[in-house]
Amino acid sequence: MAARRTYLDHNASAPLSDGARAAMVDALAIDANPSSVHTEGRDARRVVETARREVAALANGDPANVVFTSGATEAASWLLTPNWRMGRAPLNVSRLIVSAADHPATLNGGHFSPDRVTRLSVDADGVLRLDELASELASHDRSAGQVLVAIHFANNETGVVQPVAKIAAMVREAGGILVLDAVQAAGRIALDISDGCADFLILSSHKIGGPKGAGAVVSAGGVLMPEPLIRGGGQEHGHRAGTENVAAIAGFGAAAHEAKARLSNSPDIARLRDRFEAAIVDLVPGAVIFGRVAPRLPNTTYFAIPGIKAETAQIAFDLEGVALSAGSACSSGKVGPSHVLAAMGHGAYGGALRVSIGHQTSDEDLAAFVGALRKLIARRAVKAA
Amino acid sequence: MAARRTYLDHNASAPLSDGARAAMVDALAIDANPSSVHTEGRDARRVVETARREVAALANGDPANVVFTSGATEAASWLLTPNWRMGRAPLNVSRLIVSAADHPATLNGGHFSPDRVTRLSVDADGVLRLDELASELASHDRSAGQVLVAIHFANNETGVVQPVAKIAAMVREAGGILVLDAVQAAGRIALDISDGCADFLILSSHKIGGPKGAGAVVSAGGVLMPEPLIRGGGQEHGHRAGTENVAAIAGFGAAAHEAKARLSNSPDIARLRDRFEAAIVDLVPGAVIFGRVAPRLPNTTYFAIPGIKAETAQIAFDLEGVALSAGSACSSGKVGPSHVLAAMGHGAYGGALRVSIGHQTSDEDLAAFVGALRKLIARRAVKAA
Repeated sequence: MAARRTYLDHNASAPLSDGARAAMVDALAIDANPSSVHTEGRDARRVVETARREVAALANGDPANVVFTSGATEAASWLLTPNWRMGRAPLNVSRLIVSAADHPATLNGGHFSPDRVTRLSVDADGVLRLDELASELASHDRSAGQVLVAIHFANNETGVVQPVAKIAAMVREAGGILVLDAVQAAGRIALDISDGCADFLILSSHKIGGPKGAGAVVSAGGVLMPEPLIRGGGQEHGHRAGTENVAAIAGFGAAAHEAKARLSNSPDIARLRDRFEAAIVDLVPGAVIFGRVAPRLPNTTYFAIPGIKAETAQIAFDLEGVALSAGSACSSGKVGPSHVLAAMGHGAYGGALRVSIGHQTSDEDLAAFVGALRKLIARRAVKAA
Repeated sequence: MAARRTYLDHNASAPLSDGARAAMVDALAIDANPSSVHTEGRDARRVVETARREVAALANGDPANVVFTSGATEAASWLLTPNWRMGRAPLNVSRLIVSAADHPATLNGGHFSPDRVTRLSVDADGVLRLDELASELASHDRSAGQVLVAIHFANNETGVVQPVAKIAAMVREAGGILVLDAVQAAGRIALDISDGCADFLILSSHKIGGPKGAGAVVSAGGVLMPEPLIRGGGQEHGHRAGTENVAAIAGFGAAAHEAKARLSNSPDIARLRDRFEAAIVDLVPGAVIFGRVAPRLPNTTYFAIPGIKAETAQIAFDLEGVALSAGSACSSGKVGPSHVLAAMGHGAYGGALRVSIGHQTSDEDLAAFVGALRKLIARRAVKAA
């Protein structure tokens, strides 16, 4: 019998929900291309459009303003371009402003040349330095083109939630475009693009209980849009060519529907997260929980154990049956120092461990985590003795 | 009870094979991100790498030279760019040569400006005009940059197979780069990138019995590569960022494995195709089967019924339970004249119908098609009387 595993890495990829799995199995039974006009094709089309409504609802957006992509990274690569359109008129974006704690899909600037990208600092708690944003927006030369601001709504490593209402007001005031990477925020805190929080939200299916391979851009309107990144046929209203990934989109829609319904459970998840943190503080003298005093997602804890390298600890947890991460999982096996931690000024710590939980996480999972942590600390004590 | 349906639209999207479905269900049970280093992450990674070997084998390529994408259109949008690298050195491509009968993902030129794209003619049978290719290659100004030729291996509407060995020799002689859109050829005729047929092959999962949402670029080497289209993390050796679509890739791999094993059945499929064509010729006076005298895929028949518009006939077939297409399915519900038919000089026909079959297609399917065609012809006779 396989040993019980405890999966505490929902921010890297959340387990597929039963509803998403069922929606996918149904969709996989449809042979056709959703662009085909025969009965089978129309069945496939219906699946895609149902999911579009479900994903729109998660962001309180208009289904007409949802463009499906293969994931959040594609979405960011699409939006982070100098080449835009306002209706049919070309619109040039001359500067991209990101945060130093953004995900690499944003941080690396997409299709902007490096000299066009400004990285703003975050403070020791991981919160964007609004004074720097104000100064960058004020000094932007509008005659050269528009300014585009791309910031994470909530951080993938720390869970810290940015002051998006303030950011949105500042970007709007400056006449800029605001893209919020809401990949980690979605399904964990309420999103509402109708309230002016952003011009574009980026969503990912596999962070909310849907499958890997689907993402979406939800826009506030349909007039201001980037030039297509993936070009060919006329799918997605001409914004994204290629046969739609019907099954993954179906799973994404089902997951979005469930995630919205589950938002009311966030306080329960936060209480469980607090119990993880109480255990860490209790067991680990000198433990540091990053961003703890900032607004955070209810499900994420990012912490350092003084004297133990995060990579070493991560392997030890894995051997004890507990999957958690040292930093993010986004660079294909590349284990290195966390740029988020460095941006927060905590680069001197030997990395940090991330526990990210979900609604399926149980008391048993907490117990497994505590047991593994206890062993790790005991070994450290022996080693130090 | 639902009426029996006959699905004859494999070139738009082939039915998911049982093996692909099983591989996907297994992969969907893995919670993790394949970039995570814990046990779950490594399980996901293994699924992706197994599929990479299976997809490489279908093209007789090296797994190290397979880059997974979200589909063939993304693959084409990636490859069809002026911005390349030879190792670390930038390489500029100044001209793109395509065929007038290419799929829109190629035909529209990807990321080339329209003035950099040359469209070559095809003859009345849909075969590329090699004299035009020779003349374009000869007149290309190499001092301005490289020349890139992107041609379909086999046509999605007619099934006509291009003289790829000759094309490859000509492009190689001219020092150009050759991309073959092998989406329709894969799994229907043998592919072998090791024989110098192309620098890059584009493959699609859902045309060979895998799910929608996965595609691949198989390259002859790893030094000459386009700049990444989707940017962020370091996945796919830095060529394509974003969390891998593990389940779809698993299904793609399984389908590729099956498709390769099934290549020996091609003569059976061709014989069944010939029976469809014999029935068409028998029932429809004046029927035209396009590209019939050219080398063709074993599974595709593209034909016109004089006096009946293809769109009308397609709807009539659908009502009789037979799914086939009028042209391709690649422009999101946009039913219009076929650019392939026009390129072949057959624009005067009121469109054409495509029957595309697979290994699951049975005598019963043929009988259903013949029954529906007979009714259609009878109605036309009544109408004409």
